[in-house]
Amino acid sequence: MADQTAQIGVIGLAVMGKNLALNIESRGFTVGVYNRHRERTDEMMRDHSEKKLVPSYTIEDFVNSLEKPRRILMMVQAGKGTDAVINELLPLLDKGDVLIDGGNTNFHDTMARNAKLDESGINFIGMGVSGGELGALQGPSLMPGGQKEAYDLVAPILTQIAAKAEDGKPCVSYIGPNGAGHYVKMVHNGIEYGDEELIDESYNVMRNVLGLSVDEMADIFAEWNKGELDSYLVEITADILTRKDDLGDDKNLPIVDAILDRGANKGTGKWSSETALDGGAPQSVITEAVYARYISMLKDERVAASKELPEDVEKVTLSDDEKKEYIEKVRQALYFGKVMSYAQGFEQMRIDSERYDWNLQYGELAQIWREGCIIRAQFLQKITDAFEKNPALKNLLLDDYFKDIAKKYQKAIREVVALSVKAGIPVPSLAAAINYYDSYRAEVLPANLLQAQRDYFGAHTYERTDRPGNFHYSWYEEQ
Amino acid sequence: MADQTAQIGVIGLAVMGKNLALNIESRGFTVGVYNRHRERTDEMMRDHSEKKLVPSYTIEDFVNSLEKPRRILMMVQAGKGTDAVINELLPLLDKGDVLIDGGNTNFHDTMARNAKLDESGINFIGMGVSGGELGALQGPSLMPGGQKEAYDLVAPILTQIAAKAEDGKPCVSYIGPNGAGHYVKMVHNGIEYGDEELIDESYNVMRNVLGLSVDEMADIFAEWNKGELDSYLVEITADILTRKDDLGDDKNLPIVDAILDRGANKGTGKWSSETALDGGAPQSVITEAVYARYISMLKDERVAASKELPEDVEKVTLSDDEKKEYIEKVRQALYFGKVMSYAQGFEQMRIDSERYDWNLQYGELAQIWREGCIIRAQFLQKITDAFEKNPALKNLLLDDYFKDIAKKYQKAIREVVALSVKAGIPVPSLAAAINYYDSYRAEVLPANLLQAQRDYFGAHTYERTDRPGNFHYSWYEEQ
Repeated sequence: MADQTAQIGVIGLAVMGKNLALNIESRGFTVGVYNRHRERTDEMMRDHSEKKLVPSYTIEDFVNSLEKPRRILMMVQAGKGTDAVINELLPLLDKGDVLIDGGNTNFHDTMARNAKLDESGINFIGMGVSGGELGALQGPSLMPGGQKEAYDLVAPILTQIAAKAEDGKPCVSYIGPNGAGHYVKMVHNGIEYGDEELIDESYNVMRNVLGLSVDEMADIFAEWNKGELDSYLVEITADILTRKDDLGDDKNLPIVDAILDRGANKGTGKWSSETALDGGAPQSVITEAVYARYISMLKDERVAASKELPEDVEKVTLSDDEKKEYIEKVRQALYFGKVMSYAQGFEQMRIDSERYDWNLQYGELAQIWREGCIIRAQFLQKITDAFEKNPALKNLLLDDYFKDIAKKYQKAIREVVALSVKAGIPVPSLAAAINYYDSYRAEVLPANLLQAQRDYFGAHTYERTDRPGNFHYSWYEEQ
Repeated sequence: MADQTAQIGVIGLAVMGKNLALNIESRGFTVGVYNRHRERTDEMMRDHSEKKLVPSYTIEDFVNSLEKPRRILMMVQAGKGTDAVINELLPLLDKGDVLIDGGNTNFHDTMARNAKLDESGINFIGMGVSGGELGALQGPSLMPGGQKEAYDLVAPILTQIAAKAEDGKPCVSYIGPNGAGHYVKMVHNGIEYGDEELIDESYNVMRNVLGLSVDEMADIFAEWNKGELDSYLVEITADILTRKDDLGDDKNLPIVDAILDRGANKGTGKWSSETALDGGAPQSVITEAVYARYISMLKDERVAASKELPEDVEKVTLSDDEKKEYIEKVRQALYFGKVMSYAQGFEQMRIDSERYDWNLQYGELAQIWREGCIIRAQFLQKITDAFEKNPALKNLLLDDYFKDIAKKYQKAIREVVALSVKAGIPVPSLAAAINYYDSYRAEVLPANLLQAQRDYFGAHTYERTDRPGNFHYSWYEEQ
């Protein structure tokens, strides 16, 4: 019978929970493990009998198997599953124990749970975990938020299981109070949506405007991965484009051509856009990426519409030299788009950090994304550098490195968007990126006309350029 | 002392409540009126002593002043104000009474209140009211949702106070159960955001790409208002552009140039985009309009950025003839953009009508927006016609009239977007419009690559073009 020998316990032994438990154990810790259905626990003990795992078959035994203050990592279904486990645990815990929710939880729920458990003196950490199954086992990027003193109690474990960046730093740090960890994970996922859509649009432009083959594009992405675009997502894109279909009759068919173009989603990108809308953050690149998935899901409607809706587009014919030039323009457009997407994501975090009083450390966030997670990339170091130079930076674009990218690459994205729009190939996120840039650097936007309209039909008043205050114009009196 | 003589009662006598009460009274009804602070009631009775208004100074007297079943229109602050009034009223009401919330309420709240009051046998109607102060007095567009039998009890009043369209039909109809009325009002407001942004972008392109003066644009919008674009918002835009500053030193300054370009919002456009994201509706044109307001609010940041961020744009020089041609292209682009925005708005309503089981009547909705509300326009009749021809129409674009617009005008919007992007003038909603069109009519979108990426990093599986089912590719095995 277990007796307070495990340094941490894991509840929920599906693949993510199991892999995190094995990761922790591999760093020299003894891990208590528990699953609602005992089969999973039995299976894990059978497969890993030599490991320092302490299995329990009731939640009471599980709680009793842990050192005090207890550290418990929940890897269960977000929502009702999490609440059910918390309710079972609550009567068994002592003040000062630390509960960690490592699930894909909405940060509003985490804020509510943190506040509620705080009343009982139980610490609650909402922790974003990125990196998928393999990351969980070998080293994920971790985004824990909650009481700082609770973080300090689990930091010795988290820093050991997290991925390590090139400079040896672990990809984990204290994010902030209550829901900050799950919030930052949500923004990470939104940024991931943006990265994917920008890559996919670049692929689509090269394929359908420039007329390149899948093989040619595989080489191009591999080449791009050696430069500024060096990142996990560009790397796997290059690899994907080399792969052939393993199931169909034609063994030379690129696998992408066997895959149906319906882009699924699990909701975190959507949350990210909803939160941006709610907080007043102009997060257009990521939102267009979410909408692009929604349109892609309407496959049957699109197939029908493709036969019915008229097309009046410019036929693009490029010489081989022009094509080559254009490939480089697409690369520049992609990088420019990526910079805008991150500028928007970090602007969103700044707005919400103030709103929720989280004191987010933007440079550190970029650091812990350098390894372990899906958006890992060299590029993130540039963001860390920018915030180290100026912790009060209002927008990434105002940092010299990013300003220089904007200077060098804006012409390319203008051309790529203009050409694609004329050729009838959709580039919603690339277009949102350049429109964001041109809006953000616009001294005057047409919102003066908007305010006139609102004052006209709804007496909403307007502000003036020459003096403070709110004014109403006598629209209904003849002049 | 009042005694069951009023046919309807109005609670909340701020400008909207007062004007609706006066509108109802003007149609021959006796109206009970009540306000939390008696000053408003006194003032109203003083100003309108000759009218058939029955004032009450306690909520008990107010309830007793009404015919049974009672009909009570609440025009109070959305949210807590509404709940407070409901809680005061509830013990005083009888089964079968009808409570109407005419405030700017989130439809989720209306759904919850409708369900809760239904338990006590009280009918609850959430009613969208559009048209501003003047509309409330002279004839608004009304969007009531709730129990059908409750609607029937108030329909004789609502049909008389609503605006009348050219063909004499009142701009009100039963929208659907529980939150359907406030939902449709929310989508109306989202569409209004889209209309305004598209007009404002067109103005901005003409001013900053074509180099037109405010006076020239006043004439152009007035001209446009005689054709397909005939609408309230284009009409007032033309009028606004003729108006001169009434406060500054320069009496020849167009008023728009005295107005600060910070576009405010009251949240309903944001709700509309959040709901689209939640339901899976690709509502990009309106969402970009919301984001455009957010960016406009960052005035200080923009002024600073305008001096710091590099510009590398194409200088546009057009001959007078080319300018003239381009003005017509901007008109076509604006109309094309408007069609996309409405196609998205109606697609959103179709998705949510199924989701919440509302059975929305799309053709009727377009009809009741023809007068009284901010988006009133001839154009709406085309939508009604489309749904009359085919009530099961999946997307407005598939109707012959709109298909023809898409055919004739897509070249113009492609050119306007391409030129503006190259010239550095932001056109986020126009760009979203053409990108939506090109996405919706795309037989294949690059979501096949997306699904490959998701299967690669997260084992999310993919669907195939040649057979049903979900598949996983062995990405990590060398081939």
